Amino acid sequence: MDNFTYYNPTKYIFGKNTVQQIGQEISKFNVKKVLLLYGSGSIFKNGVYDTVSESLKENGIEFVELGGVKPNPVITKVYEAIDLCKNENVDGILAVGGGSVLDSAKVIASGVFFDGDIWDVFERKAAPPKKALPVFTVLTISATGSETNPYAVITNEKDKKKWAFTAGAVSFPKVAIVDPTVQFSLPREQTLFGAIDMMAHIFEFYFSTAEENLTSREIFEGILRSVIETLPKVLSEPDNYELRAELALAGTLALSGLHVSSFGQGDWASHAIEHSLSAFYDIPHGAGLAIIFPAWMKYVYENNSKIFERFAEKVWRISSSEKNLILKGIEATEKFFKGNGAPTRLKDVNISGSSIPELAENAARLAPLGKIKKLNYENILNILELAR
Amino acid sequence: MDNFTYYNPTKYIFGKNTVQQIGQEISKFNVKKVLLLYGSGSIFKNGVYDTVSESLKENGIEFVELGGVKPNPVITKVYEAIDLCKNENVDGILAVGGGSVLDSAKVIASGVFFDGDIWDVFERKAAPPKKALPVFTVLTISATGSETNPYAVITNEKDKKKWAFTAGAVSFPKVAIVDPTVQFSLPREQTLFGAIDMMAHIFEFYFSTAEENLTSREIFEGILRSVIETLPKVLSEPDNYELRAELALAGTLALSGLHVSSFGQGDWASHAIEHSLSAFYDIPHGAGLAIIFPAWMKYVYENNSKIFERFAEKVWRISSSEKNLILKGIEATEKFFKGNGAPTRLKDVNISGSSIPELAENAARLAPLGKIKKLNYENILNILELAR
Repeated sequence: MDNFTYYNPTKYIFGKNTVQQIGQEISKFNVKKVLLLYGSGSIFKNGVYDTVSESLKENGIEFVELGGVKPNPVITKVYEAIDLCKNENVDGILAVGGGSVLDSAKVIASGVFFDGDIWDVFERKAAPPKKALPVFTVLTISATGSETNPYAVITNEKDKKKWAFTAGAVSFPKVAIVDPTVQFSLPREQTLFGAIDMMAHIFEFYFSTAEENLTSREIFEGILRSVIETLPKVLSEPDNYELRAELALAGTLALSGLHVSSFGQGDWASHAIEHSLSAFYDIPHGAGLAIIFPAWMKYVYENNSKIFERFAEKVWRISSSEKNLILKGIEATEKFFKGNGAPTRLKDVNISGSSIPELAENAARLAPLGKIKKLNYENILNILELAR
Repeated sequence: MDNFTYYNPTKYIFGKNTVQQIGQEISKFNVKKVLLLYGSGSIFKNGVYDTVSESLKENGIEFVELGGVKPNPVITKVYEAIDLCKNENVDGILAVGGGSVLDSAKVIASGVFFDGDIWDVFERKAAPPKKALPVFTVLTISATGSETNPYAVITNEKDKKKWAFTAGAVSFPKVAIVDPTVQFSLPREQTLFGAIDMMAHIFEFYFSTAEENLTSREIFEGILRSVIETLPKVLSEPDNYELRAELALAGTLALSGLHVSSFGQGDWASHAIEHSLSAFYDIPHGAGLAIIFPAWMKYVYENNSKIFERFAEKVWRISSSEKNLILKGIEATEKFFKGNGAPTRLKDVNISGSSIPELAENAARLAPLGKIKKLNYENILNILELAR
């Protein structure tokens, strides 16, 4: 096990009817006026907007609103929000939505203290600011795990770059409220892609090392089994509280905790390739992951065969005496995605084979990608071909 | 799943040769002079004292020392340390040791701001102070999980009370350094009882509810399997780093994380009964737990039979088709403790049957104990009889 440091100061409030606590929590930080940031407007339909705005008013917190954050959030929206924050003198940001809204909020929170173009931090041309406005969130989709980490992924539409950002400890949300009842009304697709995102986060760590790391590996396997058991049930009973709660908790646990940190930095090649897909085609992140991960697995498993064997046995409960154990584990993964309605090939989202070189080239700008197998342009091309 | 809030601001530094970071970490909090608190002096033999004191000096941090904290730490020592802190004007506490030293440090840290007898807070006669000196720790025994929580258990020798304390968020250690190499030289008994303490912490949550709570239950089962697989190996290879690291990480994970918080408050009847044993007989906490838990399980399992069945299957891998599945799971637990050299009956630690009423009476001062079955004096007596 490699050395690691774990630090996570986010206050995590979980459960029924917890959204109304947001105003009180923000007021504890002595914040007087927030930017209320949201996405496409589902918060007006599910009642979250009303609950949040009432809670802010009750606690004497002013707010200025900005909606329209897209599922693959873009840097131009971040710029717009930074200007708004400066003009309106807000002293905090409240992200109400999923990972896209929250990720945007993290960059905005730093951006108001950055002299210049905050995208330069994504490009590693400039260091991130050492301070940020406090970020608060009411999470409406469990998926990205962004609620308890300091990371953000934003797309630069012009340059077709979907890249990552953090300003370190100041980028953690101060308070994250996760009320599973809010997710009862999610479209089926968003629940599905959210769950695939959770699984993908675990994959990035689980397969990233050949070390036993038994305690944490057991934990990851447990979360995977829970998601695999729970997701189909949630899809058929979208307003079952216990099921929604399991999935919501699994999403946060997939990407934070000692078990995650003890695995080190992870692999992240599949995410990088997926980011290329969604930068070009604006498909849901979870859909892209369902397409890329099985292909990546098929291409790299020889570099970590013991762990891929263990995965088949422990997660998919395939007997170790079966022939082609590893391939059966990968097949089970692909089948699970497909069986629940996710695309698993590029053609399923109308990306033609002729786009593959361009996609590979885009992803290869950050090459070599990954850890268990370092991927260059050629390798990325091969993986995309497997996903054709 | 019940609503819960999770908040844990402890910075957790894990790995080889990390002890030397302590001075630098403390200096980040602008602390100039610490109380260096420790136990029986093993830190002089394993080199930790030298590493710590050098690191403090290098970072310009003065320190005053106090050793002699006992394994079942006592309130009189806490009083002594509070006086010392006041006289020496320290502005931080560095606990170097196991849970007993760290628990003492937490109470001392609050005690210096308390006007009166800090034991009154244990008695719920007074509210805890709202502030505390910052507590730092270099953990030398993985067991209690005290390194990432705000709780302390201290014995009042005079009144034979081994009771709990917290001042809330201010009681979390600011920084916890866990270097598994430090534990290579631990006596076999301390490693063993530490691991039993970890398992016991999980039991307190795992059996405390009949709810499925699938994700977190899977995580607890994974940690239990890891401890069960790792402990015997550590006992035979005490200086194997990977094994020590697994056990150390399991100890922290047994008692903190979202999986723990999502289980609510836990049962804690067994701990309360054990506290009575060690208040009278000063036996190691882990030894007392190895005696009480199997007896408690036998007495209460009918109140949560589905979970006890699941425990036998998932943790001990006993086939669900076996007769007396639950009893076989409990038997396996007892056998595991005994097989590794722990006492499992009162007579194994020379506590005679004639002491049982007095022990039960002591424990019953906090009755009713527990959650899945509320225990009164009579029940406690019966459990102790089963442990005879």
